Order: sequence, then C-alpha cells, then structure tokens
Amino acid sequence: MTHSQRRDKLCARLQTASWDAMLVSDLNNIRYLSGFTGSNAALLIFADARPAVLATDGRYRTQAAAQAPDIEIVIERACGAALTTRAAAAGVRSLGFEGHVLTVDAHHALTATLSDHPNTALVRASGAVEALREVKDAGEVALLRLACEAADAALAALIERGGIRPGRTEKQVRNDLEALMLEHGADGASFETIVATGANSAIPHHRPTEAQLCTGDFVKIDFGALVGGYHSDMTRTFVLGAPAAWQTEIYDLVATAQRAGREALAPGVALAAVDGAAREVIAAAGYGESFSHGLGHGVGLQIHEAPGINAKAAGTLLAGSAVTVEPGVYLPDRGGVRIEDTLVVGNRPELLTRFPKELQTL
Amino acid sequence: MTHSQRRDKLCARLQTASWDAMLVSDLNNIRYLSGFTGSNAALLIFADARPAVLATDGRYRTQAAAQAPDIEIVIERACGAALTTRAAAAGVRSLGFEGHVLTVDAHHALTATLSDHPNTALVRASGAVEALREVKDAGEVALLRLACEAADAALAALIERGGIRPGRTEKQVRNDLEALMLEHGADGASFETIVATGANSAIPHHRPTEAQLCTGDFVKIDFGALVGGYHSDMTRTFVLGAPAAWQTEIYDLVATAQRAGREALAPGVALAAVDGAAREVIAAAGYGESFSHGLGHGVGLQIHEAPGINAKAAGTLLAGSAVTVEPGVYLPDRGGVRIEDTLVVGNRPELLTRFPKELQTL
Repeated sequence: MTHSQRRDKLCARLQTASWDAMLVSDLNNIRYLSGFTGSNAALLIFADARPAVLATDGRYRTQAAAQAPDIEIVIERACGAALTTRAAAAGVRSLGFEGHVLTVDAHHALTATLSDHPNTALVRASGAVEALREVKDAGEVALLRLACEAADAALAALIERGGIRPGRTEKQVRNDLEALMLEHGADGASFETIVATGANSAIPHHRPTEAQLCTGDFVKIDFGALVGGYHSDMTRTFVLGAPAAWQTEIYDLVATAQRAGREALAPGVALAAVDGAAREVIAAAGYGESFSHGLGHGVGLQIHEAPGINAKAAGTLLAGSAVTVEPGVYLPDRGGVRIEDTLVVGNRPELLTRFPKELQTL
Repeated sequence: MTHSQRRDKLCARLQTASWDAMLVSDLNNIRYLSGFTGSNAALLIFADARPAVLATDGRYRTQAAAQAPDIEIVIERACGAALTTRAAAAGVRSLGFEGHVLTVDAHHALTATLSDHPNTALVRASGAVEALREVKDAGEVALLRLACEAADAALAALIERGGIRPGRTEKQVRNDLEALMLEHGADGASFETIVATGANSAIPHHRPTEAQLCTGDFVKIDFGALVGGYHSDMTRTFVLGAPAAWQTEIYDLVATAQRAGREALAPGVALAAVDGAAREVIAAAGYGESFSHGLGHGVGLQIHEAPGINAKAAGTLLAGSAVTVEPGVYLPDRGGVRIEDTLVVGNRPELLTRFPKELQTL
C-alpha cells in the first residue's frame, strides 16, 4: 500500500468522525502516512481531497523532499503550530489532534495559536492512525519478515560459533548478537537486548552485566532486529550443560503454554482469551504467580503497539495484526524461562521468528 | 551525588514553589532521582521529608527493589493513577505534574482519578527536574567521560584497521563503528549513527545506505556511545584522498567556527551569544544559509536536553552543563562538513571528545 493510499484510509475515518482535518504529531504515524523519518515533524491531513502538508525544520529540508515527494513541505521548527495555523487559514472548523501523543504543554501552545481563530477547535482524535496501523499491509509484513529473518540468522550464527558458553559475560553475548544482526541485514537492534544468565534470568527485563555464564545456568535472550523501521521480537532460553529436573519442568511448561497461546491466535478471538489460553496452562501447574506480565503485544513501527494481549485487554484480534506470544515463568534467585515468537494473525498464523524452540543445551 | 541527595534538591524546589508534592512521569527524571531504569514507572516526591514512593508494574518487582533499595515500591500497572491516589490520601493539596511529558489523555485520566478527592489539584511543574539535571554532578560527568572515551576509541580503531576507505558502504562503516563502541565499553549507540558519504554528507541527518564511499568524497560521521545511561555525541568529517579546494575551504571554515563556539563557552554567557560566535564566522564567509541548524544542545541522560544553544535560545550557560558544539556547512548535491564535540562548561570548558579535529585524508 502506498503512503497516499494510507492517507486516503485516514481521510475516510475523518469523514466518518466529522472532523475536517487531523494534525498528526506522532513520528511513527507520520512515517506511516508520508514516508518521512525525521525527528521533528507534523503532518496535516484534510478530510476532503485537499493534499496533505508536512512540516519539519531546516535540518530535514533535503530528506523530506526525497522521502515524501508527493507532499507539500513547510520548513518551520514549531511544526505543530505552523500546521494548526495553516488548518485555521484553510477554514478547518474541527481539527483532530493526538491526545495520546501531544503533551499538556504542547496542547496549551496550540490552543494559544488558535486564539486568533475562534472558528477552529481542537478535538481529540487519539489512536485514529494507530487503528489503521494495527492491520499490517503486504509491504509491512515483508519488512517484519526481513527483521525476523535477520534475528533468526544472527542467533543461529552466534550459536554456530560457540558464542554462548560458560565463561563469557552477558555483555559479550549481547555485543556479538547485536553485531551479528547488523551483519545479517538489520539496521540496528529493535530494543535493548536482554541477555540474562542464571538467577538473572528470573528478572523479566534484565539488562546485560559483566556476570559470567556458568554451567547449569538458564540463559534467556530477548532481542530483535530493526529493518526499514519495523521491529522483530523473539526470546529463546537455553541451558548450559545438562538441565536439572526443575529446569526441564518449567521449560516444558512455558513451551506448552506458548504453543497454546499461538494456537489461540485467530481473527475475531478475544484478546483476553488468547492471554488466558497460555495463562491457564501455567496456572494449572501451580506457577500462575510466576508469570507476572501479559502474554504479548503488537509489533510494527513500534516494538510495543496495539493490540495488547493480556488478561485485562478489551477487543478482539484482527486479521493482519502482527503480535508476540511470550509467556514466562520466573523463580526469584533461581532462574526463569521465556519463549517468544512474532506472528502475523490470519486463518492460520504465520510464524515469523523461525528459530527452533526445543530446549537446547549448549 | 546520591539519588537521595538529588531528591532533596527537588524537595527544596517544591517548597519554593509551594507545591506539596510532585508526580514525576518522565523515565529519565525517574532514573535521575531514584536509580530505577524500567520502562513503566512513576515517582512521588513530597515537599516535606516524607519518603518517596516509586510505582512500577510486576515485570520490574525485582529490578526496582535492587535499583532503588531506599524507596518504597508500589506494584501497579497504572503507575501515575496509583501515586495520584496515594498523594490525595496523604493530604497533598497541590500536586505538581510534568506537563511537558504527560499527554493530554494521561492528564485526563489523572483528573478523573481525583474526582473523588476535591482537595487535591494538579498543577503544572514542567521542567522542575530537568532544571536540576542541566548541571551535571561528578558522577554524571564521570559517565559522560566514559561514554566519550568509548566513542573516541572506537573511531580510532576503525581508522586504524582501514575501515573508512573507498568501496565500503555507509552501512558497513556504521556497523563496524557500532560494534567497536560495544567492544570499547559502550552499552550501545547513543542514537542512530550517521555515516554520510559524498553528496549525502550535505544531508545534516542522513541515514546510512548501501552507497559506496568513493575517492574524493567527504565522509561525515556523527555518532555517540551510551554508558550507564549517559550519551556522548561527536561528529568528524574526513576526505577520501586529496581534498579539493572547495573541500578544504569549507572544512577550515567549519573548524574555525567550531573553535569560536567552544571558546565562547563559559558560565553566564548568553546561549544565543554562543551560537552567534560560531555562526558569525560562517556568515562572514558567505555560507550563513548553509548552516541550517542550531549550534548545539545539552547531553546527559538524553541525547538532546537543556540547554539548547541556538539563535533563539533564552538564558545563559550554567557551570557544569554538558553541551555539544556542532556547526556545519552543507552544500546540496556536493557535500557537507560538520565538526562536533561534547564539552562540560566551567571556567575552562573540559573537552570530552578528544579525537583530533584536523582535516584527515584517508
């Protein structure tokens, strides 16, 4: 789908909501709708067929023209104010704004900008673009596939060269894995790589330290690659040497729960029911308290985006959503296991992270 | 300075402003005041000596206890709402909030939380913590030094191994440089590394592509290392082979302007005057239009923080601020030069990025 087609979809939403225009502030939303990737921008979309306007500052003059050749570019550091004034001058009466992105102070500033334009009102249009982004188009899925392939290839190469072994530190493993992702086509890591060994693996979001990997440890690795703005997300947990009985027990439990979660993915299924499918497996084994986070989340231009898959989530899965399924069991001071895949929801979910999930001993 | 001492400084500010407490939402501010580095948190600081309260969700139970052992931890996914209720129950009448961080929607939610507590009002306290952060303490400067040293060492190692030469791509250079930063002690890159060759060097914030470096190109590299949460920021521009006359001209011009900017750094100097010191050099040579961005910015827990150093900036430099000085001249379709250092302001500025700035031909 072209950026112009995505803007047309938003126009249809604006018409349905009876908003004359929308001021887009979120940088990922701007990228999604225009192709522009700079760090300071705003985008004005009219509900009727008038062409969109992109504002950015002088640093991005050349880049904006190259990335968004079909959009008028306005160079102005105060992007939001410039486009708010533009909208008012164009006769916009109700101007949607992103209340989940715009800060209280930025909203005050825009309101002040409109003090000379009493016929233009700011109205909350939070989540309008994110609702479009929840369903990935073919170009987005292609980028997610590439991101997941880069992560798969990097982890396989790391293991192939013996990179996960006793005596190495969490940071060394992280460094190698991130370098290998770049070698395999990633633009970068999609978030701070987690490498957690031994008791550290019981910390769901541990940051790599100088701790050394030891025989008998769980080694939990949660990482992803970024390709063309799209994020992959995968967790694998290994054991160094022969696993103890308790390690096999919780590994198999998490693997079973993860499979149940993946198998629950289908269009129209309640998000809370997907979480429940995996959670019930863990709770039935008596480890319910040790699974302290939601089952998964959407991924795309953000590492965490709609939909959230957890016990309190409202709504249902949509065909074309890209989501993670990542149950875990964490035993403080002993160790933890998480197994996570990224998948695209369809009549059969497409598994994007294809690295094996059988318990590997290294 | 300990986290507790930093909180005491904030208490003094709250007392001056007659606020009973402050709800801190910004994650960097929370890290600064508590040591906690998780991705979902809020922090309640009372103006009197009552102890602070940190809220986070279940994923971070272990981490929060380890990183902020001297603070009460509340586990609750809706962190801001939990602490707002807590403040109201504690008799807080005026509760400062971060209007530059809290979104319009989040503010609505907190207001709704207070509907049962008519004696508690939310008041804008934007920037109160950032004002403290503008002056770095000794521990912060030590981390900035380490970050700058890691970047210096990585660039030197890259050149030593011949990593910047004709035939290599921008992405290859970026990949090597980022891997070398990790090898030299960085936790990661402090922002998306810019490697821009030939005409791409005229794009101030170019993203690395498959473009190959060619003899005669300017190669502009803007990058930084992240150490313990602190960001370094440095730009160097090289020429591949013998420089043309126009390349020497604009390189020397930017170098002269950059020196003028550095020499203007001193406590009490107007920020706009620092920008002007460098800008006048470039304007006098007839290239004023080709320097399309501000001279610099503060660095610390964020890659861009207070103070901004540009023509429109109000205020003056403070002793102990860490700032960049980074003039550039960009000639579209030909090439551009930027030279950037990170320094700490004092009676004599301390140069943290020590990689040489003489024009190097590779």
